Amino acid sequence: MQIEVYPTCDSVKDLSGKTAIVIDVLRATSVITTALFNGAERVIPVPSVDEALNLAREFKGNALLGGERGAVKIPGFDLGNSPLEYKKELMAGKAVILTTSNGTRAIKASESAEHILIGCFLNASAVAEKALRFALSSETSCVALVCAGTLGEFSLDDAACAGLIVDSLVRNIERKKEPPELSDLAFACRELYLKHQDDLKALISHAAHYKKLLNLGFERDIDYCLQQDVIDCVPVYDKKL
Amino acid sequence: MQIEVYPTCDSVKDLSGKTAIVIDVLRATSVITTALFNGAERVIPVPSVDEALNLAREFKGNALLGGERGAVKIPGFDLGNSPLEYKKELMAGKAVILTTSNGTRAIKASESAEHILIGCFLNASAVAEKALRFALSSETSCVALVCAGTLGEFSLDDAACAGLIVDSLVRNIERKKEPPELSDLAFACRELYLKHQDDLKALISHAAHYKKLLNLGFERDIDYCLQQDVIDCVPVYDKKL
Repeated sequence: MQIEVYPTCDSVKDLSGKTAIVIDVLRATSVITTALFNGAERVIPVPSVDEALNLAREFKGNALLGGERGAVKIPGFDLGNSPLEYKKELMAGKAVILTTSNGTRAIKASESAEHILIGCFLNASAVAEKALRFALSSETSCVALVCAGTLGEFSLDDAACAGLIVDSLVRNIERKKEPPELSDLAFACRELYLKHQDDLKALISHAAHYKKLLNLGFERDIDYCLQQDVIDCVPVYDKKL
Repeated sequence: MQIEVYPTCDSVKDLSGKTAIVIDVLRATSVITTALFNGAERVIPVPSVDEALNLAREFKGNALLGGERGAVKIPGFDLGNSPLEYKKELMAGKAVILTTSNGTRAIKASESAEHILIGCFLNASAVAEKALRFALSSETSCVALVCAGTLGEFSLDDAACAGLIVDSLVRNIERKKEPPELSDLAFACRELYLKHQDDLKALISHAAHYKKLLNLGFERDIDYCLQQDVIDCVPVYDKKL
Protein backbone atom coordinates (compact mmCIF):
# COMPACT_ATOMS: atom_id res chain seq x y z
CA MET A 1 0.00 0.00 0.00
CA GLN A 2 1.44 3.36 -1.08
CA ILE A 3 0.40 6.79 0.09
CA GLU A 4 1.52 9.86 -1.85
CA VAL A 5 0.76 13.59 -1.66
CA TYR A 6 0.81 16.14 -4.50
CA PRO A 7 1.32 19.73 -3.26
CA THR A 8 -0.56 21.56 -6.05
CA CYS A 9 -2.83 20.91 -9.07
CA ASP A 10 0.11 21.46 -11.43
CA SER A 11 2.28 18.81 -9.76
CA VAL A 12 -0.22 15.97 -10.31
CA LYS A 13 1.04 13.13 -12.50
CA ASP A 14 -0.72 10.15 -14.04
CA LEU A 15 -2.97 8.63 -11.36
CA SER A 16 -4.15 5.60 -13.38
CA GLY A 17 -5.35 2.82 -11.11
CA LYS A 18 -4.97 4.99 -7.99
CA THR A 19 -7.55 6.29 -5.53
CA ALA A 20 -7.36 10.10 -5.37
CA ILE A 21 -8.51 12.30 -2.50
CA VAL A 22 -8.83 15.94 -3.58
CA ILE A 23 -8.29 18.48 -0.77
CA ASP A 24 -9.07 22.20 -0.83
CA VAL A 25 -9.78 22.96 2.82
CA LEU A 26 -10.32 26.70 2.35
CA ARG A 27 -12.88 26.20 0.95
CA ALA A 28 -14.02 24.20 -2.12
CA THR A 29 -13.91 20.65 -0.76
CA SER A 30 -15.40 21.83 2.56
CA VAL A 31 -18.25 23.41 0.54
CA ILE A 32 -18.88 20.27 -1.56
CA THR A 33 -18.89 18.01 1.53
CA THR A 34 -21.24 20.38 3.39
CA ALA A 35 -23.62 20.81 0.45
CA LEU A 36 -24.04 17.04 -0.03
CA PHE A 37 -24.29 16.41 3.71
CA ASN A 38 -27.04 19.04 3.83
CA GLY A 39 -29.08 17.25 1.17
CA ALA A 40 -27.92 18.57 -2.21
CA GLU A 41 -28.71 15.98 -4.86
CA ARG A 42 -25.36 16.55 -6.55
CA VAL A 43 -22.58 19.10 -6.90
CA ILE A 44 -21.09 19.62 -10.36
CA PRO A 45 -17.62 21.20 -10.28
CA VAL A 46 -16.69 23.12 -13.44
CA PRO A 47 -13.45 25.01 -14.16
CA SER A 48 -14.77 28.29 -15.61
CA VAL A 49 -17.51 30.83 -14.98
CA ASP A 50 -18.61 30.47 -18.63
CA GLU A 51 -19.06 26.72 -18.26
CA ALA A 52 -21.02 27.25 -15.05
CA LEU A 53 -23.39 29.70 -16.75
CA ASN A 54 -23.85 27.42 -19.80
CA LEU A 55 -24.61 24.42 -17.61
CA ALA A 56 -27.07 26.45 -15.54
CA ARG A 57 -28.98 27.24 -18.77
CA GLU A 58 -29.19 23.49 -19.54
CA PHE A 59 -30.70 22.99 -16.08
CA LYS A 60 -33.32 25.66 -16.94
CA GLY A 61 -33.06 27.34 -13.57
CA ASN A 62 -33.27 24.09 -11.59
CA ALA A 63 -29.69 24.31 -10.33
CA LEU A 64 -28.01 26.70 -7.91
CA LEU A 65 -24.87 28.52 -9.10
CA GLY A 66 -22.05 28.74 -6.56
CA GLY A 67 -18.41 29.73 -6.47
CA GLU A 68 -15.80 32.44 -6.20
CA ARG A 69 -13.07 34.34 -7.95
CA GLY A 70 -10.53 36.13 -5.74
CA ALA A 71 -12.36 34.48 -2.78
CA VAL A 72 -15.53 36.54 -3.33
CA LYS A 73 -18.92 35.53 -4.78
CA ILE A 74 -19.24 35.76 -8.57
CA PRO A 75 -21.74 38.48 -9.66
CA GLY A 76 -25.13 36.96 -10.52
CA PHE A 77 -24.41 33.66 -8.76
CA ASP A 78 -26.77 32.31 -6.07
CA LEU A 79 -24.03 31.39 -3.61
CA GLY A 80 -20.38 32.24 -2.90
CA ASN A 81 -17.75 29.81 -1.63
CA SER A 82 -18.68 29.93 2.05
CA PRO A 83 -19.76 26.49 3.37
CA LEU A 84 -22.03 28.31 5.85
CA GLU A 85 -24.20 29.44 2.93
CA TYR A 86 -24.89 25.84 1.85
CA LYS A 87 -27.65 25.29 4.43
CA LYS A 88 -30.14 22.40 4.65
CA GLU A 89 -33.12 24.55 3.67
CA LEU A 90 -31.43 25.63 0.42
CA MET A 91 -29.78 22.34 -0.51
CA ALA A 92 -32.58 19.79 -0.17
CA GLY A 93 -32.83 17.90 -3.48
CA LYS A 94 -31.01 20.63 -5.43
CA ALA A 95 -28.18 20.40 -7.96
CA VAL A 96 -25.33 22.83 -7.35
CA ILE A 97 -22.98 24.00 -10.12
CA LEU A 98 -19.71 25.10 -8.50
CA THR A 99 -16.66 26.90 -9.89
CA THR A 100 -13.73 27.93 -7.69
CA SER A 101 -10.14 29.10 -8.29
CA ASN A 102 -8.25 26.06 -7.05
CA GLY A 103 -10.54 23.22 -5.93
CA THR A 104 -12.35 22.53 -9.17
CA ARG A 105 -8.99 22.62 -11.04
CA ALA A 106 -7.62 20.02 -8.61
CA ILE A 107 -10.57 17.72 -9.31
CA LYS A 108 -9.99 18.02 -13.07
CA ALA A 109 -6.24 17.39 -12.54
CA SER A 110 -7.12 14.10 -10.80
CA GLU A 111 -9.32 12.72 -13.58
CA SER A 112 -6.87 9.93 -14.50
CA ALA A 113 -7.46 8.28 -11.09
CA GLU A 114 -9.61 5.14 -10.78
CA HIS A 115 -11.65 6.71 -7.96
CA ILE A 116 -11.85 10.39 -6.96
CA LEU A 117 -13.01 11.26 -3.44
CA ILE A 118 -13.49 14.71 -1.91
CA GLY A 119 -11.73 15.28 1.41
CA CYS A 120 -11.41 18.00 4.04
CA PHE A 121 -11.02 18.24 7.83
CA LEU A 122 -14.80 17.88 8.21
CA ASN A 123 -14.86 14.31 6.81
CA ALA A 124 -11.17 13.29 7.27
CA SER A 125 -11.68 9.92 9.00
CA ALA A 126 -14.58 8.97 6.75
CA VAL A 127 -12.69 9.80 3.55
CA ALA A 128 -9.61 7.87 4.78
CA GLU A 129 -11.72 4.79 5.49
CA LYS A 130 -13.47 4.91 2.12
CA ALA A 131 -10.18 5.51 0.24
CA LEU A 132 -8.61 2.55 2.01
CA ARG A 133 -11.46 0.26 0.96
CA PHE A 134 -11.17 1.42 -2.68
CA ALA A 135 -7.36 1.18 -2.73
CA LEU A 136 -7.21 -2.29 -1.18
CA SER A 137 -9.60 -3.59 -3.82
CA SER A 138 -7.65 -2.06 -6.72
CA GLU A 139 -4.52 -3.41 -8.42
CA THR A 140 -2.18 -0.50 -7.63
CA SER A 141 -3.18 -0.25 -3.94
CA CYS A 142 -2.21 3.43 -3.89
CA VAL A 143 -3.93 6.46 -2.35
CA ALA A 144 -2.90 9.80 -3.91
CA LEU A 145 -3.81 12.92 -1.92
CA VAL A 146 -4.10 15.89 -4.26
CA CYS A 147 -3.81 19.25 -2.52
CA ALA A 148 -5.36 22.08 -4.51
CA GLY A 149 -2.89 24.61 -3.13
CA THR A 150 -3.43 28.32 -3.65
CA LEU A 151 -2.82 29.78 -7.10
CA GLY A 152 -0.23 27.15 -7.94
CA GLU A 153 1.55 27.28 -4.56
CA PHE A 154 1.78 24.79 -1.67
CA SER A 155 -0.79 25.74 1.00
CA LEU A 156 -0.40 24.96 4.73
CA ASP A 157 -4.11 24.28 5.29
CA ASP A 158 -4.28 21.61 2.56
CA ALA A 159 -0.94 20.10 3.66
CA ALA A 160 -2.09 19.81 7.29
CA CYS A 161 -5.36 18.17 6.20
CA ALA A 162 -3.40 15.76 3.96
CA GLY A 163 -1.27 15.00 7.03
CA LEU A 164 -4.36 14.15 9.10
CA ILE A 165 -5.72 11.87 6.35
CA VAL A 166 -2.29 10.19 5.93
CA ASP A 167 -2.21 9.62 9.69
CA SER A 168 -5.71 8.15 9.64
CA LEU A 169 -4.78 5.86 6.71
CA VAL A 170 -1.59 4.70 8.45
CA ARG A 171 -3.42 3.90 11.68
CA ASN A 172 -6.13 2.00 9.78
CA ILE A 173 -3.56 0.06 7.76
CA GLU A 174 -1.44 -0.79 10.81
CA ARG A 175 -4.49 -2.41 12.31
CA LYS A 176 -4.49 -4.70 9.26
CA LYS A 177 -0.75 -5.34 9.72
CA GLU A 178 0.25 -4.21 6.24
CA PRO A 179 2.89 -1.49 6.67
CA PRO A 180 2.24 1.35 4.20
CA GLU A 181 4.90 3.11 2.15
CA LEU A 182 4.72 6.91 2.46
CA SER A 183 6.14 9.28 -0.13
CA ASP A 184 8.51 11.93 1.24
CA LEU A 185 5.78 14.57 1.13
CA ALA A 186 3.20 12.24 2.72
CA PHE A 187 5.64 11.74 5.61
CA ALA A 188 6.32 15.49 5.93
CA CYS A 189 2.60 16.41 5.88
CA ARG A 190 1.87 13.83 8.59
CA GLU A 191 4.70 15.27 10.74
CA LEU A 192 3.30 18.78 10.23
CA TYR A 193 -0.17 17.67 11.30
CA LEU A 194 1.05 15.67 14.34
CA LYS A 195 3.13 18.62 15.58
CA HIS A 196 0.20 21.06 15.36
CA GLN A 197 -2.88 18.87 15.88
CA ASP A 198 -3.75 20.53 19.18
CA ASP A 199 -3.94 24.02 17.69
CA LEU A 200 -4.58 23.81 13.99
CA LYS A 201 -5.79 27.40 13.80
CA ALA A 202 -2.42 28.66 15.07
CA LEU A 203 -0.70 26.64 12.34
CA ILE A 204 -3.07 27.72 9.59
CA SER A 205 -2.71 31.37 10.65
CA HIS A 206 0.72 31.26 8.95
CA ALA A 207 -0.88 30.44 5.59
CA ALA A 208 -1.00 33.20 2.98
CA HIS A 209 -4.55 32.12 2.05
CA TYR A 210 -5.70 32.32 5.69
CA LYS A 211 -4.61 35.95 5.88
CA LYS A 212 -6.48 36.75 2.68
CA LEU A 213 -9.71 35.14 3.90
CA LEU A 214 -9.40 36.84 7.29
CA ASN A 215 -9.01 40.25 5.64
CA LEU A 216 -12.16 39.58 3.61
CA GLY A 217 -14.14 38.81 6.79
CA PHE A 218 -14.35 35.01 6.42
CA GLU A 219 -13.11 34.03 9.91
CA ARG A 220 -16.29 32.02 10.66
CA ASP A 221 -15.65 29.99 7.49
CA ILE A 222 -12.14 29.19 8.69
CA ASP A 223 -13.36 28.06 12.12
CA TYR A 224 -16.01 25.90 10.45
CA CYS A 225 -13.58 24.31 7.96
CA LEU A 226 -11.03 23.39 10.67
CA GLN A 227 -13.49 21.15 12.56
CA GLN A 228 -12.38 17.53 12.38
CA ASP A 229 -14.64 14.54 11.69
CA VAL A 230 -17.99 16.26 12.12
CA ILE A 231 -19.38 14.89 8.83
CA ASP A 232 -19.38 11.25 7.72
CA CYS A 233 -20.42 12.01 4.13
CA VAL A 234 -17.73 11.27 1.50
CA PRO A 235 -18.42 12.82 -1.91
CA VAL A 236 -17.34 10.70 -4.89
CA TYR A 237 -16.62 12.46 -8.17
CA ASP A 238 -18.19 10.70 -11.13
CA LYS A 239 -16.12 11.32 -14.28
CA LYS A 240 -18.87 9.96 -16.53
CA LEU A 241 -21.43 12.60 -15.64
CA MET B 1 12.07 40.49 3.17
CA GLN B 2 10.44 37.39 1.69
CA ILE B 3 11.57 33.80 1.97
CA GLU B 4 10.12 31.17 -0.33
CA VAL B 5 10.82 27.49 -1.04
CA TYR B 6 10.29 25.56 -4.27
CA PRO B 7 9.92 21.79 -3.73
CA THR B 8 11.31 20.61 -7.10
CA CYS B 9 13.07 21.89 -10.25
CA ASP B 10 9.81 21.77 -12.17
CA SER B 11 7.97 23.99 -9.68
CA VAL B 12 10.39 26.93 -10.03
CA LYS B 13 8.84 30.13 -11.35
CA ASP B 14 10.40 33.39 -12.54
CA LEU B 15 13.06 34.36 -9.99
CA SER B 16 13.95 37.77 -11.51
CA GLY B 17 15.56 40.05 -8.96
CA LYS B 18 15.62 37.27 -6.32
CA THR B 19 18.55 35.55 -4.61
CA ALA B 20 18.32 31.80 -5.19
CA ILE B 21 19.87 29.07 -3.04
CA VAL B 22 19.95 25.74 -4.87
CA ILE B 23 19.82 22.67 -2.59
CA ASP B 24 20.51 19.05 -3.52
CA VAL B 25 21.79 17.58 -0.26
CA LEU B 26 22.18 14.01 -1.55
CA ARG B 27 24.50 14.84 -3.22
CA ALA B 28 25.17 17.42 -5.96
CA THR B 29 25.35 20.63 -3.91
CA SER B 30 27.31 18.83 -1.17
CA VAL B 31 29.78 17.73 -3.90
CA ILE B 32 30.11 21.25 -5.39
CA THR B 33 30.66 22.82 -1.95
CA THR B 34 33.23 20.16 -0.98
CA ALA B 35 35.11 20.38 -4.31
CA LEU B 36 35.53 24.17 -4.08
CA PHE B 37 36.38 24.04 -0.36
CA ASN B 38 39.05 21.47 -1.23
CA GLY B 39 40.67 23.79 -3.74
CA ALA B 40 38.97 23.17 -7.10
CA GLU B 41 39.37 26.27 -9.27
CA ARG B 42 35.80 25.99 -10.48
CA VAL B 43 32.93 23.51 -10.88
CA ILE B 44 30.92 23.69 -14.12
CA PRO B 45 27.48 22.06 -13.80
CA VAL B 46 26.03 20.82 -17.10
CA PRO B 47 22.70 19.05 -17.66
CA SER B 48 23.72 16.14 -19.94
CA VAL B 49 26.49 13.58 -20.27
CA ASP B 50 27.01 14.69 -23.90
CA GLU B 51 27.58 18.30 -22.86
CA ALA B 52 30.00 17.16 -20.15
CA LEU B 53 32.03 15.14 -22.68
CA ASN B 54 32.04 17.99 -25.26
CA LEU B 55 33.19 20.50 -22.64
CA ALA B 56 35.92 18.13 -21.44
CA ARG B 57 37.26 18.03 -25.02
CA GLU B 58 37.40 21.86 -25.02
CA PHE B 59 39.47 21.68 -21.83
CA LYS B 60 41.87 19.28 -23.61
CA GLY B 61 42.10 16.95 -20.65
CA ASN B 62 42.69 19.74 -18.13
CA ALA B 63 39.35 19.21 -16.38
CA LEU B 64 38.01 16.37 -14.27
CA LEU B 65 34.71 14.78 -15.29
CA GLY B 66 32.33 14.01 -12.43
CA GLY B 67 28.72 12.96 -11.98
CA GLU B 68 26.14 10.20 -11.85
CA ARG B 69 23.15 8.64 -13.50
CA GLY B 70 20.96 6.40 -11.33
CA ALA B 71 23.24 7.47 -8.40
CA VAL B 72 26.26 5.61 -9.86
CA LYS B 73 29.39 6.94 -11.60
CA ILE B 74 29.12 7.49 -15.36
CA PRO B 75 31.35 5.09 -17.38
CA GLY B 76 34.59 6.78 -18.41
CA PHE B 77 34.22 9.67 -15.92
CA ASP B 78 36.99 10.49 -13.41
CA LEU B 79 34.68 10.85 -10.43
CA GLY B 80 31.20 9.80 -9.33
CA ASN B 81 28.83 11.88 -7.21
CA SER B 82 30.32 11.04 -3.81
CA PRO B 83 31.66 14.16 -2.00
CA LEU B 84 34.27 11.92 -0.34
CA GLU B 85 35.93 11.43 -3.74
CA TYR B 86 36.51 15.18 -4.16
CA LYS B 87 39.63 15.23 -1.99
CA LYS B 88 42.17 18.07 -1.59
CA GLU B 89 44.93 16.21 -3.45
CA LEU B 90 42.72 15.77 -6.54
CA MET B 91 40.98 19.17 -6.50
CA ALA B 92 43.86 21.66 -6.12
CA GLY B 93 43.62 24.15 -8.98
CA LYS B 94 41.47 21.84 -11.12
CA ALA B 95 38.29 22.55 -13.07
CA VAL B 96 35.53 20.01 -12.52
CA ILE B 97 32.75 19.38 -15.06
CA LEU B 98 29.76 17.93 -13.20
CA THR B 99 26.51 16.37 -14.43
CA THR B 100 23.94 14.90 -12.06
CA SER B 101 20.29 13.82 -12.31
CA ASN B 102 18.65 16.52 -10.18
CA GLY B 103 21.14 19.11 -8.90
CA THR B 104 22.44 20.47 -12.19
CA ARG B 105 18.83 20.69 -13.46
CA ALA B 106 17.89 22.72 -10.38
CA ILE B 107 20.74 25.17 -11.06
CA LYS B 108 19.56 25.63 -14.65
CA ALA B 109 15.96 26.08 -13.43
CA SER B 110 17.16 28.96 -11.22
CA GLU B 111 18.90 30.92 -13.97
CA SER B 112 16.39 33.79 -13.92
CA ALA B 113 17.55 34.73 -10.39
CA GLU B 114 19.78 37.76 -9.79
CA HIS B 115 22.20 35.69 -7.69
CA ILE B 116 22.49 31.89 -7.50
CA LEU B 117 24.18 30.34 -4.45
CA ILE B 118 24.83 26.66 -3.76
CA GLY B 119 23.60 25.41 -0.38
CA CYS B 120 23.67 22.20 1.67
CA PHE B 121 23.87 21.19 5.35
CA LEU B 122 27.68 21.54 5.19
CA ASN B 123 27.56 25.31 4.55
CA ALA B 124 24.04 26.16 5.77
CA SER B 125 24.85 29.13 8.05
CA ALA B 126 27.37 30.56 5.60
CA VAL B 127 24.99 30.36 2.65
CA ALA B 128 22.18 31.95 4.71
CA GLU B 129 24.42 34.88 5.68
CA LYS B 130 25.61 35.47 2.12
CA ALA B 131 22.07 35.20 0.71
CA LEU B 132 20.83 37.71 3.26
CA ARG B 133 23.52 40.22 2.26
CA PHE B 134 22.66 39.81 -1.44
CA ALA B 135 18.89 39.98 -0.84
CA LEU B 136 19.03 43.06 1.38
CA SER B 137 20.99 44.93 -1.28
CA SER B 138 18.59 43.98 -4.09
CA GLU B 139 15.26 45.59 -4.96
CA THR B 140 13.03 42.55 -4.42
CA SER B 141 14.59 41.56 -1.07
CA CYS B 142 13.59 37.94 -1.60
CA VAL B 143 15.47 34.69 -0.99
CA ALA B 144 14.16 31.71 -3.02
CA LEU B 145 15.30 28.27 -1.86
CA VAL B 146 15.18 25.85 -4.78
CA CYS B 147 15.11 22.20 -3.72
CA ALA B 148 16.27 19.86 -6.48
CA GLY B 149 14.01 17.05 -5.26
CA THR B 150 14.39 13.54 -6.59
CA LEU B 151 13.23 12.80 -10.14
CA GLY B 152 10.58 15.50 -10.00
CA GLU B 153 9.36 14.65 -6.49
CA PHE B 154 9.62 16.51 -3.15
CA SER B 155 12.56 15.08 -1.17
CA LEU B 156 12.79 15.08 2.65
CA ASP B 157 16.55 15.70 2.76
CA ASP B 158 16.34 18.86 0.63
CA ALA B 159 13.25 20.06 2.53
CA ALA B 160 14.95 19.64 5.92
CA CYS B 161 18.03 21.51 4.69
CA ALA B 162 15.79 24.28 3.31
CA GLY B 163 14.18 24.39 6.76
CA LEU B 164 17.56 24.85 8.45
CA ILE B 165 18.52 27.66 6.05
CA VAL B 166 15.09 29.34 6.51
CA ASP B 167 15.61 29.14 10.29
CA SER B 168 19.08 30.64 9.97
CA LEU B 169 17.73 33.45 7.75
CA VAL B 170 14.87 34.20 10.16
CA ARG B 171 17.21 34.36 13.17
CA ASN B 172 19.60 36.65 11.28
CA ILE B 173 16.78 38.91 10.14
CA GLU B 174 15.17 39.08 13.59
CA ARG B 175 18.46 40.44 14.89
CA LYS B 176 17.99 43.28 12.40
CA LYS B 177 14.37 43.74 13.57
CA GLU B 178 12.85 43.33 10.13
CA PRO B 179 10.27 40.53 10.41
CA PRO B 180 10.48 38.27 7.34
CA GLU B 181 7.52 36.91 5.43
CA LEU B 182 7.66 33.13 4.93
CA SER B 183 5.82 31.33 2.16
CA ASP B 184 3.66 28.41 3.32
CA LEU B 185 6.29 25.89 2.24
CA ALA B 186 9.14 27.88 3.85
CA PHE B 187 7.18 27.75 7.12
CA ALA B 188 6.51 24.00 6.79
CA CYS B 189 10.17 23.17 5.99
CA ARG B 190 11.35 25.17 9.01
CA GLU B 191 8.87 23.28 11.23
CA LEU B 192 10.11 19.96 9.82
CA TYR B 193 13.73 20.89 10.53
CA LEU B 194 13.03 22.20 14.05
CA LYS B 195 11.12 19.04 15.00
CA HIS B 196 13.93 16.75 13.83
CA GLN B 197 17.10 18.82 14.27
CA ASP B 198 18.44 16.56 17.01
CA ASP B 199 18.34 13.46 14.82
CA LEU B 200 18.39 14.40 11.17
CA LYS B 201 19.47 10.94 10.08
CA ALA B 202 16.35 9.41 11.59
CA LEU B 203 14.25 11.91 9.65
CA ILE B 204 16.13 11.45 6.38
CA SER B 205 15.89 7.66 6.73
CA HIS B 206 12.25 8.06 5.66
CA ALA B 207 13.30 9.55 2.31
CA ALA B 208 12.98 7.37 -0.79
CA HIS B 209 16.34 8.68 -2.04
CA TYR B 210 18.06 7.76 1.26
CA LYS B 211 16.93 4.16 0.88
CA LYS B 212 18.25 4.05 -2.68
CA LEU B 213 21.69 5.42 -1.67
CA LEU B 214 21.88 3.06 1.31
CA ASN B 215 21.16 0.05 -0.91
CA LEU B 216 23.96 1.16 -3.24
CA GLY B 217 26.43 1.32 -0.32
CA PHE B 218 26.65 5.11 0.06
CA GLU B 219 25.99 5.35 3.83
CA ARG B 220 29.29 7.22 4.46
CA ASP B 221 28.20 9.84 1.91
CA ILE B 222 24.93 10.33 3.78
CA ASP B 223 26.69 10.76 7.14
CA TYR B 224 29.09 13.25 5.55
CA CYS B 225 26.31 15.27 3.84
CA LEU B 226 24.25 15.59 7.04
CA GLN B 227 27.02 17.43 8.95
CA GLN B 228 25.94 21.00 9.69
CA ASP B 229 28.12 24.09 9.26
CA VAL B 230 31.46 22.39 8.78
CA ILE B 231 32.35 24.41 5.66
CA ASP B 232 32.21 28.20 5.32
CA CYS B 233 32.67 28.20 1.54
CA VAL B 234 29.63 29.42 -0.43
CA PRO B 235 29.73 28.59 -4.15
CA VAL B 236 28.23 31.25 -6.43
CA TYR B 237 26.97 30.19 -9.85
CA ASP B 238 28.08 32.55 -12.60
CA LYS B 239 25.52 32.53 -15.43
CA LYS B 240 27.89 34.37 -17.79
CA LEU B 241 30.51 31.62 -17.87
